[in-house]
Amino acid sequence: MSALRFDGEVLRAIDQTALPWQERELELRSAEQVADAIRRLCIRGAPLIGVAAGYGIALELARDPQALQRASDTLANARPTAVNLTYAVQRVRAAVVVAPSGHEAAAALAEARAIDAEETASSAAIADYGAELLADARRILTHCNTGALAAPGRGTALAVIVELARRGRLDGVLVTESRPLLQGARLTVYELARLGIAHELLVDGAAAGLIAAGEVDAVIVGCDRVAANGDAANKVGTYGLALAAAATGIPFVVAGPTSTIDSACPTGAEIEIEQRDGAEVRCVASAAPGGSSELTLPGTRCLNPAFDITPAALITALVTERGVATPGQAGSVLALVR
Amino acid sequence: MSALRFDGEVLRAIDQTALPWQERELELRSAEQVADAIRRLCIRGAPLIGVAAGYGIALELARDPQALQRASDTLANARPTAVNLTYAVQRVRAAVVVAPSGHEAAAALAEARAIDAEETASSAAIADYGAELLADARRILTHCNTGALAAPGRGTALAVIVELARRGRLDGVLVTESRPLLQGARLTVYELARLGIAHELLVDGAAAGLIAAGEVDAVIVGCDRVAANGDAANKVGTYGLALAAAATGIPFVVAGPTSTIDSACPTGAEIEIEQRDGAEVRCVASAAPGGSSELTLPGTRCLNPAFDITPAALITALVTERGVATPGQAGSVLALVR
Repeated sequence: MSALRFDGEVLRAIDQTALPWQERELELRSAEQVADAIRRLCIRGAPLIGVAAGYGIALELARDPQALQRASDTLANARPTAVNLTYAVQRVRAAVVVAPSGHEAAAALAEARAIDAEETASSAAIADYGAELLADARRILTHCNTGALAAPGRGTALAVIVELARRGRLDGVLVTESRPLLQGARLTVYELARLGIAHELLVDGAAAGLIAAGEVDAVIVGCDRVAANGDAANKVGTYGLALAAAATGIPFVVAGPTSTIDSACPTGAEIEIEQRDGAEVRCVASAAPGGSSELTLPGTRCLNPAFDITPAALITALVTERGVATPGQAGSVLALVR
Repeated sequence: MSALRFDGEVLRAIDQTALPWQERELELRSAEQVADAIRRLCIRGAPLIGVAAGYGIALELARDPQALQRASDTLANARPTAVNLTYAVQRVRAAVVVAPSGHEAAAALAEARAIDAEETASSAAIADYGAELLADARRILTHCNTGALAAPGRGTALAVIVELARRGRLDGVLVTESRPLLQGARLTVYELARLGIAHELLVDGAAAGLIAAGEVDAVIVGCDRVAANGDAANKVGTYGLALAAAATGIPFVVAGPTSTIDSACPTGAEIEIEQRDGAEVRCVASAAPGGSSELTLPGTRCLNPAFDITPAALITALVTERGVATPGQAGSVLALVR
């Protein structure tokens, strides 16, 4: 399974809003189409949207070699929280501005492919570091989706889980459904089922009690932006899992490539949290054709932050492709990127 | 709105599984019908299922004066976690066994009506005590449904909120949807909308981050069983809210009548947590006729505890009709019932 494939003229992306019921591919041919797919979460996961943005610039420059600024702005602003968008756009821009005239699109594509390859390699390294760190965990809880649908390669946190399963160390995975958009119930369950890894699904509110009851050996999640001090933004609900892990004394591990570390962002307080449409809370995607069901009275006002901030002190370890940091220790995260 | 009405021959109950889309009334004529409505959550909320069980015994004895043991067992075992079922069944049994022959049904009905009236009075007292306690809270978060659909009168935690609104002290209510069965999204939103009290709905996972961000002044929830040491069982997800409130330093208040205190149960560890069918996690009730949508791959294994335990140390106050206890202080809860 590959969440993104660039075939030279078109970016083919699995439409993740249709999973697990339909395996449908989008064909994206412009920066705006890629940005729209990112905004609508057809393409999601911090590392994956970075890679997609890189290809989006290349697609646009192939149509119009003067479009660098417009394409960069469109893609960098598609969603605010994950730093990987900015990271990839800046790298591709830098490659394009030094390219010889007439070779802009080729330069953008080469850089996008480089980011893609690096993130794929990062995924493998994260899996290994994480599996060493969590070698004794038999039952692991994870949130949202951080597998092959969220990042090149096998993903981040879910790649660690898959590696532990490959080593025969895992009894099972507890998967939070991850409302509102159910990336756990729809995507992580889909990936684990395809891989034949034992798993059980639970509602988000059940995680803390199951952790307290001793049902979980470790929690591992991904991240959308890690501040210089080690605070991490991730899918809404992550902070509550970190509180529960700390209260029970089990490891709470964050996994992500160093491209997710924003050394220019001092703390979590400076991370912009995306507020999404209340319709995501009022409704739920479902297997029904057309697929959206009302859960409450029409017109109910909603608060729908897509992310929350977990303070560094609650994060046992940050697993990256360059090794493992201890966010609670001053300077530990920055040491990975300096 | 009255969730239950006993009209002499039949117990009329709002079918809470059909709200907010349909206001449908069930007509219950036997202990088994009442127990079935409790198991299916057509009637729910710890105080309300206690009252319903009392009426259920009366209904059954009117059909068969020898049915006391069978009716009591059926109703006491309908659900395991809320102590109110046992409480009400024991009280009605005690009234019946001392009744003159031929007056069993009348004795049961009189005791059921007494419990109903006492719980209604308790609701009003809880509302007053709670509103005094939380007089300075402008934005309150609540979980599940603890209003007029969950208890006689205006309920427990939601009765406090309604009283604060009546006093003009409230800016708004944050309502967690309360997966899997969405008692927040379906029932609390329905009650608050009817009462014209400003409210916003959020997914369960969003609560902790919003608390940390300063969006909430206090959390108030109901309870299904309070142990002698002050540990409280309540709707799954409650414990995580208590952790978040403690981490941010806002009050975490539990409200319920003293009939919810189980002085024979030493700690939360001895409270049986009901494990419900995984279909509640795999699916969601919705407005569609027939009303259930698949959210994940069919056959996905689920963990579905209906409740969790919040340790006494995390509970700022327990508000009852007899006053306010401090569960973290030894003996404080028991002092209310001795």
